[in-house]
Amino acid sequence: MVKVGIVGGTGYTGVELLRLLAGHPEVDVAVITSRAEAGRPVSDIYPNLRGHFDIPFTEPELDQLKSCDLVFFATPNGTAMKMVPELLDGNCKVIDLAADFRIKDLAVWEQWYGMPHACPERVAEAVYGLPEVNRQAIRQARLVANPGCYPTATTLGFLPLVEAGLVNLTGLIADCKSGVSGAGRGASVGMLMGEVGESFKAYGVPGHRHMPEIKQNLSVAAGQDVALTFVAHLVPMIRGIHSTLYATITSDVDLQAMYEQRYANEPFVDVLPAGSHPETRSVRGINHCRMAIHRPQGGDTVVILSVIDNLVKGAAGQAVQNMNIMLGLDETLGLQAVALLP
Amino acid sequence: MVKVGIVGGTGYTGVELLRLLAGHPEVDVAVITSRAEAGRPVSDIYPNLRGHFDIPFTEPELDQLKSCDLVFFATPNGTAMKMVPELLDGNCKVIDLAADFRIKDLAVWEQWYGMPHACPERVAEAVYGLPEVNRQAIRQARLVANPGCYPTATTLGFLPLVEAGLVNLTGLIADCKSGVSGAGRGASVGMLMGEVGESFKAYGVPGHRHMPEIKQNLSVAAGQDVALTFVAHLVPMIRGIHSTLYATITSDVDLQAMYEQRYANEPFVDVLPAGSHPETRSVRGINHCRMAIHRPQGGDTVVILSVIDNLVKGAAGQAVQNMNIMLGLDETLGLQAVALLP
Amino acid sequence: MVKVGIVGGTGYTGVELLRLLAGHPEVDVAVITSRAEAGRPVSDIYPNLRGHFDIPFTEPELDQLKSCDLVFFATPNGTAMKMVPELLDGNCKVIDLAADFRIKDLAVWEQWYGMPHACPERVAEAVYGLPEVNRQAIRQARLVANPGCYPTATTLGFLPLVEAGLVNLTGLIADCKSGVSGAGRGASVGMLMGEVGESFKAYGVPGHRHMPEIKQNLSVAAGQDVALTFVAHLVPMIRGIHSTLYATITSDVDLQAMYEQRYANEPFVDVLPAGSHPETRSVRGINHCRMAIHRPQGGDTVVILSVIDNLVKGAAGQAVQNMNIMLGLDETLGLQAVALLP
Amino acid sequence: MVKVGIVGGTGYTGVELLRLLAGHPEVDVAVITSRAEAGRPVSDIYPNLRGHFDIPFTEPELDQLKSCDLVFFATPNGTAMKMVPELLDGNCKVIDLAADFRIKDLAVWEQWYGMPHACPERVAEAVYGLPEVNRQAIRQARLVANPGCYPTATTLGFLPLVEAGLVNLTGLIADCKSGVSGAGRGASVGMLMGEVGESFKAYGVPGHRHMPEIKQNLSVAAGQDVALTFVAHLVPMIRGIHSTLYATITSDVDLQAMYEQRYANEPFVDVLPAGSHPETRSVRGINHCRMAIHRPQGGDTVVILSVIDNLVKGAAGQAVQNMNIMLGLDETLGLQAVALLP
Repeated sequence: MVKVGIVGGTGYTGVELLRLLAGHPEVDVAVITSRAEAGRPVSDIYPNLRGHFDIPFTEPELDQLKSCDLVFFATPNGTAMKMVPELLDGNCKVIDLAADFRIKDLAVWEQWYGMPHACPERVAEAVYGLPEVNRQAIRQARLVANPGCYPTATTLGFLPLVEAGLVNLTGLIADCKSGVSGAGRGASVGMLMGEVGESFKAYGVPGHRHMPEIKQNLSVAAGQDVALTFVAHLVPMIRGIHSTLYATITSDVDLQAMYEQRYANEPFVDVLPAGSHPETRSVRGINHCRMAIHRPQGGDTVVILSVIDNLVKGAAGQAVQNMNIMLGLDETLGLQAVALLP
Repeated sequence: MVKVGIVGGTGYTGVELLRLLAGHPEVDVAVITSRAEAGRPVSDIYPNLRGHFDIPFTEPELDQLKSCDLVFFATPNGTAMKMVPELLDGNCKVIDLAADFRIKDLAVWEQWYGMPHACPERVAEAVYGLPEVNRQAIRQARLVANPGCYPTATTLGFLPLVEAGLVNLTGLIADCKSGVSGAGRGASVGMLMGEVGESFKAYGVPGHRHMPEIKQNLSVAAGQDVALTFVAHLVPMIRGIHSTLYATITSDVDLQAMYEQRYANEPFVDVLPAGSHPETRSVRGINHCRMAIHRPQGGDTVVILSVIDNLVKGAAGQAVQNMNIMLGLDETLGLQAVALLP
Repeated sequence: MVKVGIVGGTGYTGVELLRLLAGHPEVDVAVITSRAEAGRPVSDIYPNLRGHFDIPFTEPELDQLKSCDLVFFATPNGTAMKMVPELLDGNCKVIDLAADFRIKDLAVWEQWYGMPHACPERVAEAVYGLPEVNRQAIRQARLVANPGCYPTATTLGFLPLVEAGLVNLTGLIADCKSGVSGAGRGASVGMLMGEVGESFKAYGVPGHRHMPEIKQNLSVAAGQDVALTFVAHLVPMIRGIHSTLYATITSDVDLQAMYEQRYANEPFVDVLPAGSHPETRSVRGINHCRMAIHRPQGGDTVVILSVIDNLVKGAAGQAVQNMNIMLGLDETLGLQAVALLP
Repeated sequence: MVKVGIVGGTGYTGVELLRLLAGHPEVDVAVITSRAEAGRPVSDIYPNLRGHFDIPFTEPELDQLKSCDLVFFATPNGTAMKMVPELLDGNCKVIDLAADFRIKDLAVWEQWYGMPHACPERVAEAVYGLPEVNRQAIRQARLVANPGCYPTATTLGFLPLVEAGLVNLTGLIADCKSGVSGAGRGASVGMLMGEVGESFKAYGVPGHRHMPEIKQNLSVAAGQDVALTFVAHLVPMIRGIHSTLYATITSDVDLQAMYEQRYANEPFVDVLPAGSHPETRSVRGINHCRMAIHRPQGGDTVVILSVIDNLVKGAAGQAVQNMNIMLGLDETLGLQAVALLP
């Protein structure tokens, strides 16, 4: 059994990691830390874990974490970067579910995250954990930056088009919608059910931190800079992201075939039959990205519809997928459930 | 008191008309028809109307309707066009909340609505009932085609840009989201709460009937044909439409000022302060369209956020606004409530 | 025009008061206070009020409040009791929407609210503002204690039975369900949509503050002490309370007729036809209590179903009703809208 | 591998069976029937099953079903009773998820289900499939009547009290609340999201089919007739049942200890610590019943809170549990997932 630790176990990505790891046959969760809840049984906060995890939250201690084979950081941005160097000095591997190691350009990172980076020397080494792009590198990695939720759904949706050089790279549009769990479990007026239930709105239109991450991904895929407009919206539901992507094609190819071929060997990307409209519920609780490709009225505008569960493929599930790859396990271990529908 | 009739009073636009007209000081609802529910008291189906309307639904009868000053059709597409000619031969004015008279090009109409038009001779005469564009014509009209819900939110959002000739007309994108009441009150598996609750999806991407209507509106405003990509999505909430609109500007102007000026005298269009993100709940139950204008990172892409209540400004409220104009009443009569928030 | 003030205008009962008073023809809202938001325009926090209230929140100042004819307290428990004495020394009337003056027995109040009462000398004078019971006293009152939400729905439901002495007073059960807006607009993890959406639970079963209030009401009506079990539940919706009430009848009478007669002259209590099941949406946004009376299988157990909008008849609407009575206005002024359905 | 068939695979209990059986290591689903959808791939209707079940729905054919080791009926009431006799004549075992074999008293069954019973001779033989009561009999059974959703949550909640003879059996009250998936996937106006979203109501108060089933269960447990008032309510969420149960105790015992002891060896009943309030989301997607026992203010009224997922322990999960027992497999196979929270 592989011994893993989770730093920051009380948020939604933390509990989702626990849910998935409870069913993982090769992993033993040895440590779950939480400063705020140290001493309290995990299942006290999350009754769905009763009978699965009977250990308590503990204070985060480096020595204890270093005894793990792999440590997940399910912490706010800016936490992992302070602890990662010491962990990597041991034999420990690390997956950061926050944004500390996602952006290669430090200046860009510091601009969008509003703080100096605490271990810039590790940024280059970190592998961006999108297996559909970086599987080989993840296999060798000791430090993986787990992608953001919007960037996962959006990058996977645009990827075949951009890799193939088939679209105008100066006018990409990503109109994205997320359930409320994406905002985490912190107390806030703005995420009360009384405020966000039965309503819909955009947010962060002047600038959202996931924009530079998506841009970086697409620029790498294109081999050149891309221009992207990214608008996030909040949906009155708990889980799910739907990215509606717009691009102008510059060449006439069979997009359906191209997408199917690009993802033919990917266990967690499902290209739906032509004409489909993926629903977020079709991936509720699972690690799949389902997508459909449209060219309305046969025009030059391609519309890609891409859905994930923001807490699974957009966070904890992708982290488990990365862990499986890093540890040489079957990539789908612990990730084989069927989506909860209805 | 003005005497009005409603044909098709059992659907969501019908009950919304009744809700609004119950508070209208100058109107008496004399007839409410429903083939299926004839004889049953209105408040039996809609208990919110108890004490406000104690009349029963009746079979639709032309003679009775002709005795009204104005008749609303809150019927499925294809119904009004069969009864309108005879009503107009009397002294009756008509507002059709369905699509029978919205599209001027009959071939386009017949293609999208899949039936021959029953009174093509009245199509040209019908005035498209968007007061912010056609107020003068509505004042004289005997037959008003009440706009669709998506077309209202989308047209009002694009209008100042397109009228001013400030955007590239070949790449307009309207990414629109609607609550479930837009689908009406007919029994269907697809709109069960078990199917659409806690999920999000696009629909009709290959082609949606509101696309030609929006295109017509924008082409009229531009004085030339426009190319538009329109994608509709279903939000797990009951009321509200959010249009997120994308356009490439071709000239550098103060968009905020331009929008504020364009709508300065409009009682039902509210341009929010720069930087705002309108929520659909801010117009729940009322006839307003609220909108905000963004230019993310100062680029060439303009993003307009435009919200309405699909049953009010997107249907029954706009119909009452049109009625007020047609009858020479204060345009805001019966439409002065405050949105229900939270 | 009557000049009114609102202390604590940023919570849900505050904004609901503003929504209702915006449509009240005889009232001018002269002051809206909020320590936290002083200086900020009201419509900045509540965009639904744009165009209706353009004044800013101000610091609560007694002199300014004393210039009002009537002051509403939409504040947390324990605030009104500190300011009321001085206001009453002037010419000002007061309606407290919190619990400071609801319980006549000071020891009981202090036990359940966990603080000493700051002006015990005014408690006896305060009139419990349930017009269906205390209309005459409210007319004369200078200080009205506006009832709680659960107590309103529950008391009105049990009232005819208890007044008539027709039930066993030792086994009353009130199984009550509320939407989330009842918990107010304070930041809390427990009321995040991620926590309360798509789930249902009971809360406060060992003891809830509304229990002694309901008991007091029913004991007054019965002329003797009653025993009551009260269980509150949280429903994943924003507005609405549904009280399901159980009692054992001791005498065989026509309950439907008795209820209809008891409430025949009440403008805001609607006894539905026999066999009905009131929905909370049938009173969304309005001041009505709708109820139905059942005797399943003709047994001895009576089941009363009673619904209100917790923010209207359960808070701000009842406060406006009380204000109308206190000021000698038509009791229904500002409260004549139709419920928003769907 | 055990070969199983599912008759009626398109409803919510059918798809839930498929979801659970997809993860069952000892079962092969050989046949899924649907008259309406014969020929269509299962995953076409339920995209969550893509990659898990690639077989199509077929017409129900007895010969094909008889080749299965066990057949589930996920059909409307009245279907299984017509096919069961012939299946039992072969070597096939049967679990009926509908109500055909739940009620032992045929006259009661025919009264509540409104039709003559098609195979009365098999009713006595059928075992009521509540493993916490009938595990031994289920082990031997060839025909299991899978309990209803409300009866499961309610019976498990009352059971220890009633078995121990500690409560007044003439005044039991079950106030139950269910998510909308309990109503199934048939097209109906009443279950549209526009009708049931953001609202709460009771239904079936004069009489609900689950009442005689619960009464039968409790009468068997008590060894005498019980009197029960049962009220069902509809919650605006998809999954989950919450039973709030009221009884008057006649003897003073440690209820918490008694409940913990009664269910100590039950893999799917979880008695929460004293003072708890179980949430339906804590069992979302899993086969557990979680419950808490209260005695508010130390009075004579016991309040039991009992939650299940209506589609799992209330239907398909309990059917899989019964199958495991009937086939001599580990009772928890295929039922070990963690609830999806949030």
